[in-house]
Amino acid sequence: MQAQRLNLMLDSVARLVRRGAMSHALNLLTKLRPVDVAQILNQLPQHERETLFDSLVRHDLTRAAEALSELETGRAVHLLTTLSRADVSKLLQELPSDDAALLVAELPEELRDELLDAMKVEQSTDVQELLGFADETAGRIMTPDYFALDEDVTISEAITALQRRSEEFEMAFYLYVVDSRNHLLGVVSLRQLLLNSPSTPLRKIMSTDVIKVSTGTDQEEVARLVATYNLLAVPVVDEENKLSGIITVDDIIDVMREEATEDIYALAGVEAEDRPLGSSINSVRRRLPRLLLSLGAALIAVAIVRLYSTAIERELWLAVLIPVVATMGGNAATQTMTVIVRGIGLGEVRWDTSLRVVVKEALVGLINGALVGLVVFGIIWVWFGWKVGAILGITMMVSLLVAGVLGTVVPILLKRIRVDPALASSVFVLTITDVITFFFYFGMATLLLKHFRF
Amino acid sequence: MQAQRLNLMLDSVARLVRRGAMSHALNLLTKLRPVDVAQILNQLPQHERETLFDSLVRHDLTRAAEALSELETGRAVHLLTTLSRADVSKLLQELPSDDAALLVAELPEELRDELLDAMKVEQSTDVQELLGFADETAGRIMTPDYFALDEDVTISEAITALQRRSEEFEMAFYLYVVDSRNHLLGVVSLRQLLLNSPSTPLRKIMSTDVIKVSTGTDQEEVARLVATYNLLAVPVVDEENKLSGIITVDDIIDVMREEATEDIYALAGVEAEDRPLGSSINSVRRRLPRLLLSLGAALIAVAIVRLYSTAIERELWLAVLIPVVATMGGNAATQTMTVIVRGIGLGEVRWDTSLRVVVKEALVGLINGALVGLVVFGIIWVWFGWKVGAILGITMMVSLLVAGVLGTVVPILLKRIRVDPALASSVFVLTITDVITFFFYFGMATLLLKHFRF
Repeated sequence: MQAQRLNLMLDSVARLVRRGAMSHALNLLTKLRPVDVAQILNQLPQHERETLFDSLVRHDLTRAAEALSELETGRAVHLLTTLSRADVSKLLQELPSDDAALLVAELPEELRDELLDAMKVEQSTDVQELLGFADETAGRIMTPDYFALDEDVTISEAITALQRRSEEFEMAFYLYVVDSRNHLLGVVSLRQLLLNSPSTPLRKIMSTDVIKVSTGTDQEEVARLVATYNLLAVPVVDEENKLSGIITVDDIIDVMREEATEDIYALAGVEAEDRPLGSSINSVRRRLPRLLLSLGAALIAVAIVRLYSTAIERELWLAVLIPVVATMGGNAATQTMTVIVRGIGLGEVRWDTSLRVVVKEALVGLINGALVGLVVFGIIWVWFGWKVGAILGITMMVSLLVAGVLGTVVPILLKRIRVDPALASSVFVLTITDVITFFFYFGMATLLLKHFRF
Repeated sequence: MQAQRLNLMLDSVARLVRRGAMSHALNLLTKLRPVDVAQILNQLPQHERETLFDSLVRHDLTRAAEALSELETGRAVHLLTTLSRADVSKLLQELPSDDAALLVAELPEELRDELLDAMKVEQSTDVQELLGFADETAGRIMTPDYFALDEDVTISEAITALQRRSEEFEMAFYLYVVDSRNHLLGVVSLRQLLLNSPSTPLRKIMSTDVIKVSTGTDQEEVARLVATYNLLAVPVVDEENKLSGIITVDDIIDVMREEATEDIYALAGVEAEDRPLGSSINSVRRRLPRLLLSLGAALIAVAIVRLYSTAIERELWLAVLIPVVATMGGNAATQTMTVIVRGIGLGEVRWDTSLRVVVKEALVGLINGALVGLVVFGIIWVWFGWKVGAILGITMMVSLLVAGVLGTVVPILLKRIRVDPALASSVFVLTITDVITFFFYFGMATLLLKHFRF
């Protein structure tokens, strides 16, 4: 739906909810796609959102479940906690198991166990199996509702099977071919069903070179495969090559958006749950830790400056130039980390190519350091004399070289030991770069002060 | 293909190319998917890459074109410039028109015109039409090779048409229904063709509530629609609702990756063509401008500090604390801009919700400022006395509030006047935040110095 129409609809719904005209509001919602219902829920103030969703659950459970699937996880979980346990359990049963697992994983533990008990046996088992896989792996995000047939089935039998069970498979573009023990043998696209004669067995038209992932594969890696090979869905197999589930491209798009947001946020020191329209208190909580870490780093710099108080008293320019000393290395380090972290995320930087990357980034740091150093030398010469210019220029070169090397090595090493490189690199690299830069600057200056007058 | 197998293959191909055993190398490539050929080309050193691609063009033009499609644009254009014009023209004719348009747009102008003349008439016209649309719009990235039929066509006729023309449509999951003048009426999924009786006319099964975009729609907006509505393809119409082309989900995934990289890079001041495995000189050129801008900002801070030299001579702590003054506002501003820019990119922050966002971020800035200010006050009290602590604490509060407001308002205004908010915000916001912070800090301190001893 066009944004304007959706906004008009939002205004009407909001007005009706405020007036308590619930049945009218619900009536408007029945004309919308589940995604649009979710968007309207998203944009309502918290109280109205809870009231409207509660009525929706009572009035049209399926629709409530569909809208819930489309909400952001944090918000959906919050809505669930405002409902009675019986309602939550009914809602979760309406959801596809992958979506249910996503939500259940975020619920408080005692509520989770109780719910899994209360849900119908089959559905609950599916959800429990998905929850058995680690967070952010293929096993966790896959749906167990795939469409698989035996290799001897013919095209016309396959079409009949598809027609009979079409309700179950919301997005089936591929049909998977398995043997009697559910080992994955091949894949057939729906298009191939249309293009071949009805009596052909699947065995004859299936492609056996299937791109697949295992249940333990990281979701970022799955996204990379889907993007590289232009897939609409990817099958997930266990360690014996038995088909466990599939992941469809729409879920992959969600993963990609989530991972990109995580990377962008992590570099700036914001936690992923910080939304522009969320509560202020939430944002404060998500950002304060990084601010306090940065404060720690700045105070370390203050401590270093304080060590050189006597020198500063003698030569005031040492203090006046601190803004340059305190910021340029950090800027260069952020640039480098950004390229490296994104490169890791997109699969361009891998362990086996890392030496080439480190050498290249060291070179970039050196060249940029020399160029910036030269400019600094020129400007500061005019302002404070050539000796001061030389000290600051050389400091820039060292600082940018250190920033380039640390900004590359640290994220690559962190990735190697399976720590999120985006999250952990930033403060660490910036602090070390600052410490080295400050010590170099004051150290060199005080050494020279013993022999020269400035 | 699994990463290990691909790496083994890469090693073999690289060895063969170095030895000049081209026909053996090409032989290995014939067993691979085009994407994998592209990945191998990507990872070869430049000279080997050019040699191998040149042989591939001579040996198997179709395969060369397919691999070219999968390469990153910059790299593909570079490879094209190493070939003869005749070869380039032949290659471009093999490409789907959207991919050809993407590459032609990046070629030097005189080469571009010459090539469009040399290419077969029909293909060249398609490419020229696509190039008529602005960069980063739906018109530019769509493919004109869609599959559309009249509303009175029956399912069995549609299947026959699909079988006859299946080669042309690489990724058809939807069949578009148009009237005699090509106005878009509805859409039918391939699945619906399988699920209904062969004699049904398309009119009866088509969905008329089609989610579509116009040729001028921004590609980021297209990506948002596809992600929100879980689409596999979206039709593009002109101002008269005539079907002009379609955009498939695999191209959307590329757009999303590209836009996310642009946002991440822009915030850190890196231009998008900076790749971890690219040349050092390229990276230097992409990063130096921002470093020099930041240097400018730092020198402005130096100029401000210099204005207060006399005060610093009297109270040295004024200088010693500069690292805190110079970095905290910038950190908070970066956090805020990151959330806002990403929110704009994901469509969560829009002009009509911007007031709510600004108020919220001002509040976050105020609360974080108060909390950080309190911590600073405590620590600096112990170190330099309570009066100094109070000055720095209040400075932090003001600085973080300013950072929050500017970090929100500036990107939203830039977006409103159609300037890329990620690209333009960062240096501007950081500089203004710093200037205000420094003036406030020194201004308040010197004012108090007239009345108190510290």
